[in-house]
Amino acid sequence: MGNSDYHTPRGVAVPPPKPFCWAVSTALKETFFPDDPFRQFKNQPPSRKFLAVPQGISYANLASLPPIVGLYSSFVPPLIYAMFGSSRDVAVGTIAVASLLLTSMIGGVVNPYENPKLYFQLAVTATFFSGVLQTALGLLRLGFIVDFLSHATIVGFMGGAATIVCLQQLKGMLGLVHFTRGTDMVSVLKSVFTQVHQWRWESAVLGCLFLFFLLLTRYFSKRKPAFFWINAMAPLMSVILGSILVYLTHAEKHGVQVIGHLKKGLNPPSLSDLAFGSPYLVTAIKTGAVTGIIALAEGIAVGRSFSMFKNYHIDGNKEMIAFGMMNIAGSCTSCYLTTGPFSRTAVNFNAGCKSAVSNIVMATAVMITLLFLTPLFHYTPLVVLSSIIIAAMLGLIDYEAAIHLWKVDKFDFVVCMSAYIGVVFVSVEIGLTIAVTMSMLRLLLSLARPRTHVLGNIPNTMTYRSIDQYPNANTVPGMLILHIDAPIYFANSNYLRERITRWIYEEEDRVKSCGEANLHYVILDMSAVGSIDTSGMSMLDEVKKDLDKRGLKLVLANPGSEVMKKLDKTEFIQNIGQEWIYLTVERPWEHATLCCIHASELPPPSGCLRLLNSLHKITCDVPKIEKRGTVKAYWVGPQPCGNRIA
Amino acid sequence: MGNSDYHTPRGVAVPPPKPFCWAVSTALKETFFPDDPFRQFKNQPPSRKFLAVPQGISYANLASLPPIVGLYSSFVPPLIYAMFGSSRDVAVGTIAVASLLLTSMIGGVVNPYENPKLYFQLAVTATFFSGVLQTALGLLRLGFIVDFLSHATIVGFMGGAATIVCLQQLKGMLGLVHFTRGTDMVSVLKSVFTQVHQWRWESAVLGCLFLFFLLLTRYFSKRKPAFFWINAMAPLMSVILGSILVYLTHAEKHGVQVIGHLKKGLNPPSLSDLAFGSPYLVTAIKTGAVTGIIALAEGIAVGRSFSMFKNYHIDGNKEMIAFGMMNIAGSCTSCYLTTGPFSRTAVNFNAGCKSAVSNIVMATAVMITLLFLTPLFHYTPLVVLSSIIIAAMLGLIDYEAAIHLWKVDKFDFVVCMSAYIGVVFVSVEIGLTIAVTMSMLRLLLSLARPRTHVLGNIPNTMTYRSIDQYPNANTVPGMLILHIDAPIYFANSNYLRERITRWIYEEEDRVKSCGEANLHYVILDMSAVGSIDTSGMSMLDEVKKDLDKRGLKLVLANPGSEVMKKLDKTEFIQNIGQEWIYLTVERPWEHATLCCIHASELPPPSGCLRLLNSLHKITCDVPKIEKRGTVKAYWVGPQPCGNRIA
Repeated sequence: MGNSDYHTPRGVAVPPPKPFCWAVSTALKETFFPDDPFRQFKNQPPSRKFLAVPQGISYANLASLPPIVGLYSSFVPPLIYAMFGSSRDVAVGTIAVASLLLTSMIGGVVNPYENPKLYFQLAVTATFFSGVLQTALGLLRLGFIVDFLSHATIVGFMGGAATIVCLQQLKGMLGLVHFTRGTDMVSVLKSVFTQVHQWRWESAVLGCLFLFFLLLTRYFSKRKPAFFWINAMAPLMSVILGSILVYLTHAEKHGVQVIGHLKKGLNPPSLSDLAFGSPYLVTAIKTGAVTGIIALAEGIAVGRSFSMFKNYHIDGNKEMIAFGMMNIAGSCTSCYLTTGPFSRTAVNFNAGCKSAVSNIVMATAVMITLLFLTPLFHYTPLVVLSSIIIAAMLGLIDYEAAIHLWKVDKFDFVVCMSAYIGVVFVSVEIGLTIAVTMSMLRLLLSLARPRTHVLGNIPNTMTYRSIDQYPNANTVPGMLILHIDAPIYFANSNYLRERITRWIYEEEDRVKSCGEANLHYVILDMSAVGSIDTSGMSMLDEVKKDLDKRGLKLVLANPGSEVMKKLDKTEFIQNIGQEWIYLTVERPWEHATLCCIHASELPPPSGCLRLLNSLHKITCDVPKIEKRGTVKAYWVGPQPCGNRIA
Repeated sequence: MGNSDYHTPRGVAVPPPKPFCWAVSTALKETFFPDDPFRQFKNQPPSRKFLAVPQGISYANLASLPPIVGLYSSFVPPLIYAMFGSSRDVAVGTIAVASLLLTSMIGGVVNPYENPKLYFQLAVTATFFSGVLQTALGLLRLGFIVDFLSHATIVGFMGGAATIVCLQQLKGMLGLVHFTRGTDMVSVLKSVFTQVHQWRWESAVLGCLFLFFLLLTRYFSKRKPAFFWINAMAPLMSVILGSILVYLTHAEKHGVQVIGHLKKGLNPPSLSDLAFGSPYLVTAIKTGAVTGIIALAEGIAVGRSFSMFKNYHIDGNKEMIAFGMMNIAGSCTSCYLTTGPFSRTAVNFNAGCKSAVSNIVMATAVMITLLFLTPLFHYTPLVVLSSIIIAAMLGLIDYEAAIHLWKVDKFDFVVCMSAYIGVVFVSVEIGLTIAVTMSMLRLLLSLARPRTHVLGNIPNTMTYRSIDQYPNANTVPGMLILHIDAPIYFANSNYLRERITRWIYEEEDRVKSCGEANLHYVILDMSAVGSIDTSGMSMLDEVKKDLDKRGLKLVLANPGSEVMKKLDKTEFIQNIGQEWIYLTVERPWEHATLCCIHASELPPPSGCLRLLNSLHKITCDVPKIEKRGTVKAYWVGPQPCGNRIA
């Protein structure tokens, strides 16, 4: 029988022979690994994972920590994340902003160069507290705290931090030895320009060359996606090229600083370094809290975007626990703060990594580096690290986002710029505090001063809309329909009471000057009032009393379920009368008109006549009426004619 | 001609003769005082104004200041308020809570008995800063800051402060000399019960008698308004009675402490006492800020309620400036913090005082006291002052309000109780901080987690309402109508994106299990979305992309003017298509149905058929359809039949 027989359903085929090895390995695999756990490792190019190395070393430098700590931080945390994390795309690593914050906050109390041991202890202690905070937030399901960092805040803050980081790299670029510990623009620039005679041209030339190379690769990779890998590999290539160059030219003897000796071996334990008894414990806790929240914000945002993009769901709170566990474990194994940085995750994503296993591959690459390759970094010039940082940071200054904010929302732009200016000219923490406070104030202000609109009838419909937004909407004579645009809370109840009173004054003045029908009904459209508290209920009570005193009738339209519950509990429903609470804005309108015909005492007859004559202008069913006796016959349909035409 | 001639229009009458004095005085009055400025002074019974005296002395005692400072504070500030203030009812005076805060906050750093001079200096400095803060808030029109003290916070805070004040009066009642400076329940009770052997029964008996008298008068005045004056006069009567009793029995030699010598004369200047160089300046500023805000909250609330009641308008910001000026002036004339306390204003109001001039009358009464009557207070027993304070404070523990809060709004009750417990067991400042923080958190949380509802059609109407609130509302087959209940900001945009996605998942599951028409349209009802920021816009963008990926159509209904502006600026309108933004929720419904008939490609024909058959259930115009070809003929009116019946 030929091969074609496999396709015929009639003949029973003998399978083609297979080699013995294949048969055994398949049998073993099916026995012990029926779920194919290594499938995920396919298509994981380990060589690319060495990319984590230059970035880790650079950011440790930024955090004023020994370069080896950066490598340690790229080994343990990714392994922990692979166990607990739920995102398939996040690649774990250190981030520039948290590194800078570490220098700024802990460096503010302990000099990292004079007392490196204590500085390192405080850094791991801060990392420990970050981890505890992140885990706690996750366990208590308080993840939404991160949502209070608005997009505008983050754009401004990141931009400011990136600016400061770039300026600080002038130290490495110019080969300066003494440098300020301040993180504001003024002290950094002062430090650079008071040491003009210390500048080393060798270092500067090398730095500029590499920076040019890095920016060039980025430029090309942006224009053609095929060049993406060139950009991603550029930092590693720079490190290798720089090291070879220094080794060949002995430039380390001519003012080009190199990394020097790196200890071989995996992460040493650092449990005993956690400085809970230190007098600087408060600083460590504060640093941990701030960096922890920032790191969470970046990690969660990155996880969310990629899960959105690939259409799977991640649980924010579980992610937080994973980040927290990773930092607690990290703080016991000589690592500092890690999260899921955007840059590295993007590399991961573009490289086609399909699961969190990519973190394991990365950790393995770093492990190999730590065990065998550290001597290779002896000649790596610091200036290359500075170039790598500058190139990365320039990408974070997102001026296009700032322009977009300016176009769309001026207040968001102000928040963004105050974060930027605060970070650049004062300090990272102050900038962040200013921006967060301003965002909060905006929220509170929007609640404290909600908008109220007068609604009018849109011609030929039964629909009532704001007369500001729809200039062709007609107000209903004898009625003032007010739409309240926010939940009613203590923060706005006084304002709303005064504003409603003012609307009534203004309407009465307008009516008087136009000679229209007198005001009889004030209808509060509650559709947008999601909830109300006790202060809000008192406000309604007072408005009701005030209207009663003026001889006006208060009508509520479409209160939601929360509001109805409260109205019921405070017996406001009995107070106002169940019949004055309506499902829609148009209903009271019908009701009031009918009332005016059938019950002559409410409103007074002459007012009623004027009201009906005014209605004549907007409805076709109500003819101009001369005498009251004629009304009943004409007014049959309760709805304005617009409804019948539509 | 007789008198009757005055009434006849025909005869020209000679006026009756008037005495010369009357003629001259009338002529003079018309010449120099044509506006009758003294009219306001009529019906101002000055004797009643001496009521301010016992209260002033008692509260100064509470603030650990010399009693004479209480009198000073009832003289200058009312005069200043009469010049600047706009409320006709507010009567100026010191308040118990601010007095207690002074003892608690400044007393925390300086002992008022060991170092009375410095304590007084800090008190006037704090008053000065209160005044500056109040004036600044008024000038900058930031008066709404006071609105952030919710009713619940104030009830709890006042109740807690009153409890502590009552307990502290045990010192006076029991004739104790040494006493704790702590303001928490535990240390006060400890101080009382560790000194059992120091208790003086003479003092206790006298105190209880007067307290009984005061509470009795209040009880009667509550039952019969005619007794109101007895209650109002009771403190003054107690002081007079107590003084006479001590004078006659020489009780001051038997353990009943008396006020002793009071300096005669008006307020001495205290400009040189403002301690701007003191090491405790920060405490003074903090105290000034906290007491200033509390005082404003009380004064403004009182002014507002009475103006509401009497139907005139007061400008909150102008009031603040008046309070601020009054405290700045006060701090230069040996006064401490004053405002418009409710108790005194109520007395004023019930006494029929018609204008701010009553403050001038009160100040005059205090002036007479200061100039001539101070020796009369020599024998006033301190225990009477304690009784007056206790009687006043018991009225501030508003347990009925707390019960009301419990019934209406559990969260408000929690805020109230945390303020109470914080004040009673920790300290006044902590209690206030806790309550304000919790109220703010409530606001922010309500923004961070807005409600979303699925809307359904209410049978026989064109109205769409939440199917939770109206269980008879029917969802529209093939459509998911979501109502978002709050403005969209960075704080809730992530949540909303996830919640909308979840609603869609749930709806798709439900549809599958019921075998209904597939989901084709997601309609976001934006009526309650008052505004949106850039984060919110990104959220809408992402929701749109996500829906596109699932083959669903996003429709916006009734976006407000703010939202439309943003939609336009970010070009979201072009992105979604102008034709998918509707004025009302019912419109897309019509449109979609018509679309489904005339454009067979959207949604697919089979879905369309199922959709129309499902529509049949809720509208009378759509009959059950067997074949697609028959649809067009039947479906004429674009609206469900309910509309025609109504």
